[in-house]
Amino acid sequence: MVTRTELANAVRFLSMDAVEKAKSGHPGAPMGMADIAEVLWRDHLKHNPAHPDWANRDRFVLSNGHGSMLLYSLLHLTGYDLSIDDLKNFRQLHSRTPGHPEYGYAPGVETTTGPLGQGITNAVGLALAEKILAAEFNRDGFPVVDHYTYAFMGDGCLMEGISHEACSLAGTWGLNKLIGFYDDNGISIDGDVDGWFTDDTPARFEAYGWQVIRNVDGHDAEEIQTAIDTAKKSSDRPTLICCKTVIGKGAPNKEGGHDVHGAPLGSAEIAAARANLQWAYEPFVVPQHIQDAWDCRAKGAGLQAAWDKLFADYAAAHPELAAEFTRRMAGELPAGWDAHVAAKIAAANDKGETIATRKASQNAIAAFAEVLPELLGGSADLTPSNLTNWPGSVAVGGETAGGNYVHYGVREFGMAAIINGLALHGGVKPFGATFLMFSEYARNALRMAALMKINPIFVFTHDSIGLGEDGPTHQPVEQIATLRLIPNMAVWRPCDTVESMVAWAEALAAKDHPSCLIFSRQNLPFVARDAAQIDGVKKGGYVLRDAANPQAVLIATGSEVELALKAQEALAAEGIAARVVSMPCTRAFDQQDKAYIASVLPAGVPRVAIEAGVTDIWRKYVGLEGEVVGIDHFGESAPAGVLFKEFGFTVENVVAKTKSVIRA
Amino acid sequence: MVTRTELANAVRFLSMDAVEKAKSGHPGAPMGMADIAEVLWRDHLKHNPAHPDWANRDRFVLSNGHGSMLLYSLLHLTGYDLSIDDLKNFRQLHSRTPGHPEYGYAPGVETTTGPLGQGITNAVGLALAEKILAAEFNRDGFPVVDHYTYAFMGDGCLMEGISHEACSLAGTWGLNKLIGFYDDNGISIDGDVDGWFTDDTPARFEAYGWQVIRNVDGHDAEEIQTAIDTAKKSSDRPTLICCKTVIGKGAPNKEGGHDVHGAPLGSAEIAAARANLQWAYEPFVVPQHIQDAWDCRAKGAGLQAAWDKLFADYAAAHPELAAEFTRRMAGELPAGWDAHVAAKIAAANDKGETIATRKASQNAIAAFAEVLPELLGGSADLTPSNLTNWPGSVAVGGETAGGNYVHYGVREFGMAAIINGLALHGGVKPFGATFLMFSEYARNALRMAALMKINPIFVFTHDSIGLGEDGPTHQPVEQIATLRLIPNMAVWRPCDTVESMVAWAEALAAKDHPSCLIFSRQNLPFVARDAAQIDGVKKGGYVLRDAANPQAVLIATGSEVELALKAQEALAAEGIAARVVSMPCTRAFDQQDKAYIASVLPAGVPRVAIEAGVTDIWRKYVGLEGEVVGIDHFGESAPAGVLFKEFGFTVENVVAKTKSVIRA
Repeated sequence: MVTRTELANAVRFLSMDAVEKAKSGHPGAPMGMADIAEVLWRDHLKHNPAHPDWANRDRFVLSNGHGSMLLYSLLHLTGYDLSIDDLKNFRQLHSRTPGHPEYGYAPGVETTTGPLGQGITNAVGLALAEKILAAEFNRDGFPVVDHYTYAFMGDGCLMEGISHEACSLAGTWGLNKLIGFYDDNGISIDGDVDGWFTDDTPARFEAYGWQVIRNVDGHDAEEIQTAIDTAKKSSDRPTLICCKTVIGKGAPNKEGGHDVHGAPLGSAEIAAARANLQWAYEPFVVPQHIQDAWDCRAKGAGLQAAWDKLFADYAAAHPELAAEFTRRMAGELPAGWDAHVAAKIAAANDKGETIATRKASQNAIAAFAEVLPELLGGSADLTPSNLTNWPGSVAVGGETAGGNYVHYGVREFGMAAIINGLALHGGVKPFGATFLMFSEYARNALRMAALMKINPIFVFTHDSIGLGEDGPTHQPVEQIATLRLIPNMAVWRPCDTVESMVAWAEALAAKDHPSCLIFSRQNLPFVARDAAQIDGVKKGGYVLRDAANPQAVLIATGSEVELALKAQEALAAEGIAARVVSMPCTRAFDQQDKAYIASVLPAGVPRVAIEAGVTDIWRKYVGLEGEVVGIDHFGESAPAGVLFKEFGFTVENVVAKTKSVIRA
Repeated sequence: MVTRTELANAVRFLSMDAVEKAKSGHPGAPMGMADIAEVLWRDHLKHNPAHPDWANRDRFVLSNGHGSMLLYSLLHLTGYDLSIDDLKNFRQLHSRTPGHPEYGYAPGVETTTGPLGQGITNAVGLALAEKILAAEFNRDGFPVVDHYTYAFMGDGCLMEGISHEACSLAGTWGLNKLIGFYDDNGISIDGDVDGWFTDDTPARFEAYGWQVIRNVDGHDAEEIQTAIDTAKKSSDRPTLICCKTVIGKGAPNKEGGHDVHGAPLGSAEIAAARANLQWAYEPFVVPQHIQDAWDCRAKGAGLQAAWDKLFADYAAAHPELAAEFTRRMAGELPAGWDAHVAAKIAAANDKGETIATRKASQNAIAAFAEVLPELLGGSADLTPSNLTNWPGSVAVGGETAGGNYVHYGVREFGMAAIINGLALHGGVKPFGATFLMFSEYARNALRMAALMKINPIFVFTHDSIGLGEDGPTHQPVEQIATLRLIPNMAVWRPCDTVESMVAWAEALAAKDHPSCLIFSRQNLPFVARDAAQIDGVKKGGYVLRDAANPQAVLIATGSEVELALKAQEALAAEGIAARVVSMPCTRAFDQQDKAYIASVLPAGVPRVAIEAGVTDIWRKYVGLEGEVVGIDHFGESAPAGVLFKEFGFTVENVVAKTKSVIRA
């Protein structure tokens, strides 16, 4: 009879051996949490290794992502398509087992983790998606959405501020199917955490409204079992299971110390561990009886088969709901989407409103929400400023069980990482908003979305000195540029209602990248366009107003397009022909073919870029010979109109700069 | 007899009137917290309006900085050099009363606040500085460092994750002279906070080890008085005073609702408030008897005179300590600094070590710490990786009362904003470290340092794909570029021991800007330099290896300088003359005169930039005709050497790119 400890030891040795072979990695967490993982994964986790994308699987998040070998070991042992050779390739180029769990590399990895605190926050998003979808889709006798979200986390996750944001919200939302495991091993990289982490963590989580199960021996399967059973019974609160563990458990000379955290144990210590744990097998060898005991494939197939039957019955009883659920979980846009988009763009073009682009954004949200029930909006406590609600939006956590609008409170980073979790779950199409300045609070979660190639939408309003009196703490200067520098991130800064509508449509249709939509506080004039120009918007940059034989090209975005157009007129009055290019999305423009790019920005014609932000970024379009009308210093507190003038965003200045490049 | 309520009403009406005149601003918080502020500022705050930089003053931080008119009103009323005309110019260009309190604009503003949560975190830094300096400088009978730090904060600050990081540390450190006031008004921008903020905040702070005073009526002076008295008696814990308040208190029709938060009340409501509060005075008029009651100048002069006497006696008894304290509070470098720096640079040059620049950084820290007792290092739980401790470093919060090294735990944002508070206090010279990737978690605090023109140092190691196996979540790609885009931020990326020593020296000597010091995980070869070249390092860019009549200039930073040098050799072998420019700090280079810049980057000679980061940023130096060897996508998990080759950081590629620009 194989013991639970032997099963856990299989995880320990796979982790030790893989880290040793890679000469790099973190054995401590996998060894410390192996016993917890064994109970959870074998006795509780509802999953089917053959179908890692089964809609109703439980979600598992390793928030302490440096312990990746724990997850890889579990995926291998339970029967996912992750071979022993994959484990042997741990941390090698193009392997499926990178240093931290990367979404899309190995099956069963629900999210990319490593940057601490974001995993548990993703998990809050996963659990929120479950709750919202359950409210929307479940019917009497048909709990088609009914799964748990489990998250492992260490001291690091709990020290990070984002854990406060996420876990506070999880309590407020009563996410009873979220179950967190705190790996309380008392060790972080600088040593014993006593010197820098003295929170009463159970009390802290109780203050958030969580059920807290204290003092679980993380190496005692019965205690773990009881705790999980209790957690699953919670009807109204998320649960934190506080597990006392020994980091590196099983390494006789190193366990319990910080040396075991992030470096290979060394062959001598691994040999000692083999003796200590009576593990008589060679590296990467798991004996058949232990493999058999771990194998979850048959059980998983049974679980999914039962759900498939349930869903088939559901589809018979509620065919429209079933079809809708299937569409949404597949991430497909509704039928007729393209026509709907075209109609809405045409309507905006016909209407020709001069409004703030944040208002244009709200109109776009309302227009697309008509056919996108999966749209799940929200704001970090700036709804009346971001203008992100719409006529059909209903607050999540309010009197109805579901909802489609999340009041995230003043929690920008938490919002963004929760949104990543929502997107990863599927079935909802999340967006969230704050002021552009506070994209900085959320910065690394935006990057994680880009890295994972998922497609949430981040809405940032009040996009420049144009926000005025709130002053430099709130006036973005470098933020548009820095967002553009995130690989795989589409940044849209539209100049009017039509560009705003197109930007939203492109962001909603994006498959493999997130989008930042950047809007003005202040009114921006509508610009008339022909059909080709409207089509040009989605190309990221296009000729908005041409001139015969242009002597210069003025490139502008957002609120500065108006300035470019006025400068064009002033130049024309002086007999100087200038073309105006609107460039709402540099990424989309850069992806066009060379011929198109050259047709917009002809070689040899000098260029002037105009954007109320830092200038360096524009040298890639204007070169050393061109000019940039921008702002390379912080703003000031004053009315917007005063500031634009003060900082050189005037027709006179653009005209002067343009003349200077023509002369040059 | 003037009543406390009348005094508080003076704050209310100045705030209402100024917001009304500016047609913009936040009257709600000043009106809601006026009663608390009256008790604190008149009865407790130790300050001298005539000398806002008195070393031993109490510090006051308005963490809910949008309530700036509260602070401006208090400064005006208590007798700071802030006139009624300054208040009338609220939120106007070049006024001393910008929309949020900006450090350096009005006297008595201790820090710039507005981005929520950072004010309370600055306050933790201010209180920590006080504790450390008290331990170092106070002697029996001479408590020359002995002041409180008070912080006001609202729901927004407490929702932000950074409040968790900062307040957890304040508890761990037992900052008993930190006293926070929670403005518990139940309102945020989206409405009643019940929907998104249900924390038991008192319990949460008790879990951090704070003394919590609950249920104080924020409009009852006696309750406030008692609470502050209790708080000041704490010997081992910071205190949170939870004040129930009515936002916009005094506006009869709007108080208690979110409409009063962030918009002018309107003339009708202000007239109604005047009737309601029986305030018979015109806008911006404070009657003499109320002015007199508020005036703290005589009291403040007395307080400071007493301290001046204490300090004079201290100086007589401990002349060296007094001189050192005076020097350090003035932010002056020690005598002989320049010679010390020169000697250490020369020694590094003589030694010529090939080591990781993070190790070179540690050597620099050790070298400069010898003569800089004010150096206050730290790391966000990466000390053994960042290599930021040194032989003389002693942990803060350990067995000794003082210390000069802070274990911040896994709290990057908190660390950075605490460091800003430490720098603002003066007397210490703080730096803090994490991996370059996690600069993103701290991003907005870095910006705030730059905005405030203060000079803390942020150390970021593991600066590229060179960190290897930890993979893309930990491999910076765009971070160096995005840090460079922060106005007023010096970013140094040295290539070897000598450049590392110079970078540290420049950062330590900086007066009006913060610095980011960026170091490699991996070894980088030492490069021999002559005296002029060593002098060139501080210019940010200089000719490291020249060639007669260069056909191309290779510009490189950090770990890619080695590659540039090797490419130069390979090109030379093919008969192509190339110059190598090392550019450790683009900001410093950009500040040189045109002649110097042209001498390094001669016009007409094509350029190739080489940096293991995003390429766009380099177009400002190489133009459209040049080339950039960089990386515009995410990294991968693999050994560093494999990755550099995989991503084109090879001699062959640099040679090919160089040839292409010469041909072009």
